[in-house]
Amino acid sequence: MINEFQMIGGPLRQGLYQNDCFTRGMRMEQFQRIPSHIGIIPDGNRRWAVQNGLLKEDGYGYGIEPGFQLYELLLEYGIREATFYGFTKDNNKRVLKQREAFTQACVKAVERLSGKDGNLYVVGNTQSPAFPEELKKYANQRVCFGRGKINLNFLVNYDWKWDLNGLRETGQLKSSGISKVDLMIRWGGRRRLSGFLPAQAVYSDFYIVDDFWPDFRPSHFLDALRWYQSCDVTLGG
Amino acid sequence: MINEFQMIGGPLRQGLYQNDCFTRGMRMEQFQRIPSHIGIIPDGNRRWAVQNGLLKEDGYGYGIEPGFQLYELLLEYGIREATFYGFTKDNNKRVLKQREAFTQACVKAVERLSGKDGNLYVVGNTQSPAFPEELKKYANQRVCFGRGKINLNFLVNYDWKWDLNGLRETGQLKSSGISKVDLMIRWGGRRRLSGFLPAQAVYSDFYIVDDFWPDFRPSHFLDALRWYQSCDVTLGG
Repeated sequence: MINEFQMIGGPLRQGLYQNDCFTRGMRMEQFQRIPSHIGIIPDGNRRWAVQNGLLKEDGYGYGIEPGFQLYELLLEYGIREATFYGFTKDNNKRVLKQREAFTQACVKAVERLSGKDGNLYVVGNTQSPAFPEELKKYANQRVCFGRGKINLNFLVNYDWKWDLNGLRETGQLKSSGISKVDLMIRWGGRRRLSGFLPAQAVYSDFYIVDDFWPDFRPSHFLDALRWYQSCDVTLGG
Repeated sequence: MINEFQMIGGPLRQGLYQNDCFTRGMRMEQFQRIPSHIGIIPDGNRRWAVQNGLLKEDGYGYGIEPGFQLYELLLEYGIREATFYGFTKDNNKRVLKQREAFTQACVKAVERLSGKDGNLYVVGNTQSPAFPEELKKYANQRVCFGRGKINLNFLVNYDWKWDLNGLRETGQLKSSGISKVDLMIRWGGRRRLSGFLPAQAVYSDFYIVDDFWPDFRPSHFLDALRWYQSCDVTLGG
């Protein structure tokens, strides 16, 4: 599937590839199969911070820029929908400094994305004090920006039980506005969903990047797409 | 965690290890962490059949014996609960000969397990004609056999949507008798859940065996346990 985004060059994209020997010269790579919807678990911020002599809570801030690098790649490769794992109810068990840091990183990321060409959709429990005030205007509805090239979903103060409980309460998932996830990419080496959209992830193919999220490189994304070429889609048939 | 099962030797277990150079001499391997509940996706029967010059539908029959080898290992290592992916509603899209073959393999496996020391629990939609008559007596209730050393669950004509719809209909998952899955082991190289218990698998660590299920070896299981030692359990905290 070739599309207009794959033709876009320009300084930002050149900047992205500059330090990435794996993808240099591969800007126009073509893929037979492009996943419609990619789930992103940007894990490893705290481990990265410790590895780099920082405090754990300092890691989250370094996870914002990689999100925008990935956003540009998603557009370039014609991905229609992406869901970023912001933070969950489970994560709120962490110490206050970390909670403040990941919440602020989420707010900054979503606010910066609101200036881009995406249809933004924040899914999470707004009834809890852990849900950031600044993001309520994007919560549980799709808010369109710019040229609306991609559906961008953010899980913010998300809780898989809260999501499934929607079935009890209204007969619908709380995340019913989010489509089936075709490809999950998780950074930081862990091999699990950690409660990421259980209903939408039932058929997702899983790709694990061992590097921590702040060490994001475009080659991680391209390697995932290359691997995805070899996955058949049978949906059990 | 050491337990009585790890001390059991005897002819069957010797038979298991006989052809398995990886585990020979490792019968008493000790693990710090033992998962309480293991999910088993025994995939690759059809690919194995084709690779061995057989018809696709002939692969399923070769998947029964490995299940019993694994059952013995589960007991030996003190696993409290295991869920085997029998077949799903999605699988019923396959041609009749394959459907008949996997249904019969499931019936044989469950009937043979009913002679063992497990508490059997078959979860699946019995309202559909695809649910085998012979297994209705084990369906959606736990039936205890022998010394009840392990909870053994079988997903038979299982459908994740049917399962979640229980929340709409009765406020409970249809699979509510099944606990959280700690470790998922999937044979056959695919890296996805394929609709396996979405609510119970939210925190599962995933281990993939590239070999096809009929080529099961005890070392697959032991490698999975070894890998599991390095997974932390944070549940998001």
